[in-house]
Amino acid sequence: MSKGVTPRSQDYARWYTDVVQKAELADYGPVKGTMVIRPYGYSIWEALREAFDMRFKATGHVNAYFPMLIPKSFLSREAAHVKGFAKECAVVTHTRLMADPDGNGVVVDPDSKLEEELIIRPTSETIIWHMYKQWINSYRDLPILINQWANIVRWELRTRLFLRTSEFLWQEGHTAHATSQEAQEETERMIEVYREVVEDEMALPVIVGRKTEAEKFAGAVDTFTIEAMMGDRRALQCGTSHYLGQNFARAFEVTFRTQDNDQEYVYATSWGVSTRLVGAMVMAHGDDKGLRLPPRVAPIQVVIVPIFRDESRDRVLQTATSLTDGLQKVTVRVKLDDRDTVSPGFKFNDWEMKGVPVRLEIGPRDVEQGVAVVVRRDTGEKQSLPLDQLAAKLPALLEEIQTSLYQQAVDFRAEHTQRPGNWEAFKTLMKAGGFARCGWDGDPETEAAIKAETKATIRCIPLDENPSGLKCVYSGQPAKYEVVLARAY
Amino acid sequence: MSKGVTPRSQDYARWYTDVVQKAELADYGPVKGTMVIRPYGYSIWEALREAFDMRFKATGHVNAYFPMLIPKSFLSREAAHVKGFAKECAVVTHTRLMADPDGNGVVVDPDSKLEEELIIRPTSETIIWHMYKQWINSYRDLPILINQWANIVRWELRTRLFLRTSEFLWQEGHTAHATSQEAQEETERMIEVYREVVEDEMALPVIVGRKTEAEKFAGAVDTFTIEAMMGDRRALQCGTSHYLGQNFARAFEVTFRTQDNDQEYVYATSWGVSTRLVGAMVMAHGDDKGLRLPPRVAPIQVVIVPIFRDESRDRVLQTATSLTDGLQKVTVRVKLDDRDTVSPGFKFNDWEMKGVPVRLEIGPRDVEQGVAVVVRRDTGEKQSLPLDQLAAKLPALLEEIQTSLYQQAVDFRAEHTQRPGNWEAFKTLMKAGGFARCGWDGDPETEAAIKAETKATIRCIPLDENPSGLKCVYSGQPAKYEVVLARAY
Repeated sequence: MSKGVTPRSQDYARWYTDVVQKAELADYGPVKGTMVIRPYGYSIWEALREAFDMRFKATGHVNAYFPMLIPKSFLSREAAHVKGFAKECAVVTHTRLMADPDGNGVVVDPDSKLEEELIIRPTSETIIWHMYKQWINSYRDLPILINQWANIVRWELRTRLFLRTSEFLWQEGHTAHATSQEAQEETERMIEVYREVVEDEMALPVIVGRKTEAEKFAGAVDTFTIEAMMGDRRALQCGTSHYLGQNFARAFEVTFRTQDNDQEYVYATSWGVSTRLVGAMVMAHGDDKGLRLPPRVAPIQVVIVPIFRDESRDRVLQTATSLTDGLQKVTVRVKLDDRDTVSPGFKFNDWEMKGVPVRLEIGPRDVEQGVAVVVRRDTGEKQSLPLDQLAAKLPALLEEIQTSLYQQAVDFRAEHTQRPGNWEAFKTLMKAGGFARCGWDGDPETEAAIKAETKATIRCIPLDENPSGLKCVYSGQPAKYEVVLARAY
Repeated sequence: MSKGVTPRSQDYARWYTDVVQKAELADYGPVKGTMVIRPYGYSIWEALREAFDMRFKATGHVNAYFPMLIPKSFLSREAAHVKGFAKECAVVTHTRLMADPDGNGVVVDPDSKLEEELIIRPTSETIIWHMYKQWINSYRDLPILINQWANIVRWELRTRLFLRTSEFLWQEGHTAHATSQEAQEETERMIEVYREVVEDEMALPVIVGRKTEAEKFAGAVDTFTIEAMMGDRRALQCGTSHYLGQNFARAFEVTFRTQDNDQEYVYATSWGVSTRLVGAMVMAHGDDKGLRLPPRVAPIQVVIVPIFRDESRDRVLQTATSLTDGLQKVTVRVKLDDRDTVSPGFKFNDWEMKGVPVRLEIGPRDVEQGVAVVVRRDTGEKQSLPLDQLAAKLPALLEEIQTSLYQQAVDFRAEHTQRPGNWEAFKTLMKAGGFARCGWDGDPETEAAIKAETKATIRCIPLDENPSGLKCVYSGQPAKYEVVLARAY
């Protein structure tokens, strides 16, 4: 673990996997495409989950849990959903194992074949709307504001830890409303909640916008997205919020009695973020020494590394322990690394790899002088500070690091965002990597041609777009939209 | 929802399902044997999860997440595990859907058949020990103290909401240790954590003990259990903690280098509790009016029902709102039911069904007199209390209700626990329902005969057993153990 990682400049994909594994965030599982989220990675996910869940509840949502196994026929109900979505799924066909008659372990009992195959949820719209039909009769039953934290399976051939795995963890909000306007407001409210968590907690600036027809969720009327720039200048979609109109209500025949005693189809939204956000933080903030975690979501914010020989051991550890207690009292998440089996140098590398925002070093001379060496993970900056000031100063320093990581990401994105004036400039930018902000004529064929030639996709039509006076970067026609284009994960 | 439930005396099973559905805890899913946990039921599970998770972390455990899909061959590795366990499983055989060539929705793509079938985890020992093999080399890597919150599938033919469903939510701790003693201490530590949460938070007294060979977990050396008495006098196993010895380490070849530079197999434990605990609370505390929730895990501890006519509406609601704020300040989980669409009487029934521990009624005369009517759900007792004393008095009242529910359950269990002196008395007790505490000769054939004749099983050998002088209730031979016998869920 003390060994370094592949430099980003040499092989970015390899660097990413190195960091994820060496920081002990995750590991590959035995089945191709599956991932084990290790305790350190999981504790980051717990911090994110808490940040989202708090805000979901503050905006009136409640959690629930729906079955993971969905009858195959449900996936046929919403036509666009089937076409665009229900393909790479795990299919359950049998329900029993038995001893191999030949004595070799267990085999599937052929007699246990299901009449109708079951699908492990690739997303839960269908099963949830099947239940909503039973729960919704009148306008009084609306809105329903339910969220679910769950695991999801989508069979992926090309996988990457956190970013794309066959199984992943996520939350999926599924809301039901009496009016289109209310559902649309909900869609926008939730993309704003996502923006807030990703920017404020993960220190990751995002562009908020709408997806094009080609890029939106299968079954949605409108998809909102937040898009962030990774360290290799590619885009990563960090969360989406869908206005589903009455599509799923129609597919599952969910109507309600209005105040005027009419029957109307219910309006829907769905929205989700997943464990891929952990990967986003690695790629947006990491450097060649490993992770750099934003303090607000770091499981360990401050690590204390005592430095001693046998004769100074007790004194140093005593000071380090009382410092640990003092920092816990001001609710800093602090860890004292008192391992005897590895050297201080090993510990420095280890905690740098794991991205702990602040390291405190305390040796015998520091104890005498009543100071500690404070090292920032984001800048590498070192300073010596009096022990009795640390409880007062560290919380502010952590906030400063949070802001600094955010600002570094904003600057990096600004540096690599251009407004290419013509197709050649666009192609050059896409080759070099970066975001292009430019005009699009609104034609799906243009969008397809851009993708075919450059692998870049329209990440979104940003909320603050202004197409007036712009020309389409590909066709030269007057732009219908201003869009953000990039190669993406 | 205002309608009553089937009385317990008439049909206990029906009463249970009525309460679970009318209190909106859970509902049946579309696939036979599956369950939807509705928001109210899920919020109870969240409270339990938090109570356990806090204690897991306080005892040094960390959370992680392992893949749900397990290669079939893994389940063949540990012989006893296969025999006793890996039977009723959901088997994934294909990974793709495609449009039906006949145009009828989607069908399974036959070309997507997996080479080796995958099993949805019925428990995770096998996949976790496969990973531990990669993480454990030396004694320095031990102990590993990992817990996982996850969903589990065991194909069940006879299902009941919360108690037995094909899919359920649980936590499973899986720890790895350098010595047998440390692993055994861990096993006992965790059953004690379970006892504490179930007794202190859920107000449910349990008997702590060991399982017999016939009843223990397949693959375990020793299984500890906590057993509670339900309202129909049957036993419910509420949680188990297993000392696995080196069984899984051998099956997955997990050895470690000891301090003396030897290689030794790692020692293991596993332990789990599940959403069945929600069912346990319904059955232990519920009455013919519905749920009765212990205040510590109640999502809503106090509900305020304002009673008004048009002319008094503003005054009453204003008082109710300021009371709500005041109670929130003293961290009481309070809800103001200001629905206009239903009557106060409907609300009373509704919140009684949902088991909210305390109801406050406030009408115009109460506002004038500066009082509220306080109604306890556990006893039905009513008293009028000054509004300005409620913030001070309600937290104590909630604690009193917590204690009262626990004491009621202790008394009920005492009333229905006997020490039958002979086989006839035992059979009479099992027919009437209750716990028998008596001698057992230790012979598995005796155990099997008792079960065959009375459907009662040995729930556990309680930790405080004292077989000296006892005779086996079935064989009349000198007792080897003192055991608790009952019919169980």
